[in-house]
Amino acid sequence: MKALVIEQFGSSSAFKQTDITTPEVLPHHVLIQVAATSVNPVDYKIRQGIVADIAPSFPAVLHADVAGTIAAVGAGVNQFKVGDEVYACAGGVKGMGGALAEYMLADAHLVAHKPESLTMAEAAALPLVSITAWEGLIDRAKVQPGQKVLVYGATGGVGHIGVQLAKWAGAEVYALVSSEEKAVIAHSLGADITINYRHQPVEEFVVEHTDGQGFDVVFDTIGNDNLQNAFKAAKLNGIVVSIISLSQQDLTLLHTKGLTLHLVFMLIPMLFGVNRAHHGEILSKLAQMVDDGKIRPLLDSKTFSMTEIASAHQYAESGQAIGKVVLTQSFHL
Amino acid sequence: MKALVIEQFGSSSAFKQTDITTPEVLPHHVLIQVAATSVNPVDYKIRQGIVADIAPSFPAVLHADVAGTIAAVGAGVNQFKVGDEVYACAGGVKGMGGALAEYMLADAHLVAHKPESLTMAEAAALPLVSITAWEGLIDRAKVQPGQKVLVYGATGGVGHIGVQLAKWAGAEVYALVSSEEKAVIAHSLGADITINYRHQPVEEFVVEHTDGQGFDVVFDTIGNDNLQNAFKAAKLNGIVVSIISLSQQDLTLLHTKGLTLHLVFMLIPMLFGVNRAHHGEILSKLAQMVDDGKIRPLLDSKTFSMTEIASAHQYAESGQAIGKVVLTQSFHL
Repeated sequence: MKALVIEQFGSSSAFKQTDITTPEVLPHHVLIQVAATSVNPVDYKIRQGIVADIAPSFPAVLHADVAGTIAAVGAGVNQFKVGDEVYACAGGVKGMGGALAEYMLADAHLVAHKPESLTMAEAAALPLVSITAWEGLIDRAKVQPGQKVLVYGATGGVGHIGVQLAKWAGAEVYALVSSEEKAVIAHSLGADITINYRHQPVEEFVVEHTDGQGFDVVFDTIGNDNLQNAFKAAKLNGIVVSIISLSQQDLTLLHTKGLTLHLVFMLIPMLFGVNRAHHGEILSKLAQMVDDGKIRPLLDSKTFSMTEIASAHQYAESGQAIGKVVLTQSFHL
Repeated sequence: MKALVIEQFGSSSAFKQTDITTPEVLPHHVLIQVAATSVNPVDYKIRQGIVADIAPSFPAVLHADVAGTIAAVGAGVNQFKVGDEVYACAGGVKGMGGALAEYMLADAHLVAHKPESLTMAEAAALPLVSITAWEGLIDRAKVQPGQKVLVYGATGGVGHIGVQLAKWAGAEVYALVSSEEKAVIAHSLGADITINYRHQPVEEFVVEHTDGQGFDVVFDTIGNDNLQNAFKAAKLNGIVVSIISLSQQDLTLLHTKGLTLHLVFMLIPMLFGVNRAHHGEILSKLAQMVDDGKIRPLLDSKTFSMTEIASAHQYAESGQAIGKVVLTQSFHL
């Protein structure tokens, strides 16, 4: 089959189109004919070699998110049949296949039927970011109706699903954005209030929107340098959910405010082979919520075909994209 | 009334016996005739001026924990009457009275009837450490039957209640201790397994006792330099509860293991006037558990009278005590 591989870590020009052996389907796995994938930061961090310990071995087929059609079903798989349209976050890391190919072998526990109301490209935008937001806000923070939830990076990949999930859970959603354009998008996703963090420091908007008490739940999709802001924004005994903390942090505010800090690392089931069925379950529930009009993916206006992988990575890394950068299959064109 | 006060921060010799005005009872408060108090690290950190921002103003009456008899009842208080024997963690910090005096004014929400089966000295050992352990293991970590719970500092103030609460909640309790003597005590408190951390590094005992998977809940009563050990000991997506984090920490393990970190700061209700009734409720439940034989305080073999406050603080600060250091009222002798 045709595939885009990297043979060493490097820039976006590291991808090479080549022919590799089509994977054989294994028990409890499915073979997905890839229709679309999307770029997540972990994909280009793996390509760059920043997180080499979780990279697949060379020649490596990258990309975690996939939408496509079941081409073969392994022994022990009953919930899928050939021809089913599915989506998943199912590889691109150590020990697994990736989506930058004609076919992707995927553990069936990670896979779900795709939302019927979405195109393949739209469906491929959802898995990694939606599972991350779900684990953070639903599984861990257990957002309750009426809570004030603050979302950092509200129009980003994880953030735009976070805004919608928090709203669906009944929260009052405060969306942090960096421009008027993004504020309009955040409102359209369901945010009750938007705050431009370039115009208002955390101390000020905590006073304006919470009487100085702080937010019940702070969802920090930016991490590292932003964690202290998240700690400042949380109420006494409040909850901070973050998805990136590869850094030294002063934990004094965590102590004096009696906070809970949840770190979400959604690759754990893929990397360690634990609790994978939960990811399939999340995507099944999510598909229903999408078809019910509760959740929708935000796609950047630029779209790419898979052979434009270098441009797609460059664009995603540039930080200019609003929402997800999606690539559709083009090997057959 | 007679009281021991400090007029400036300093060593244990800073305490002076003096006469101060007996507090008048306020609405929703009770006046407690103090029978006993105990030393908690926060008491001597306040005396030293290390945490000056939460210290009462000079002349300052210190000490949070109290056991005694109701001497007067304020308007709006129905659950107590004069002569009732009570216990509480109810002061010694900014804006509140302290227990190093003949009488202590206390917010009735923080107070509960003392366990009938305990002496005043035994009851005075419990409040601060028990509320801390309860908030950490019951309210926050929500310890479940069959979980493996690791307790750092298992014979310390908070730790010895932590061991018993985790056992009561149905957990398998692993107690970290520094000597054979403390191992015997930890077993007597209900620990299933004791581990001498001086003889076995965390990587080793995680393999021996959890097959390398890690513990469901790690209760770190030591904090700061020990936090990294706690992160290492926790399983993937596990829970770390700590009570001290006034330090810089590398959060990489929190990220790569997808951990939850709960920081318990039990002074919050006293300092900020929020959720105080929850502390009274915890102590009411605890009194029943003590009288049912489920929880008992661990008192150091040395006891002090209140006028021996300097020696009691020196001894507590020396780290030689096993269990709580308790002082009984002696102004009337």
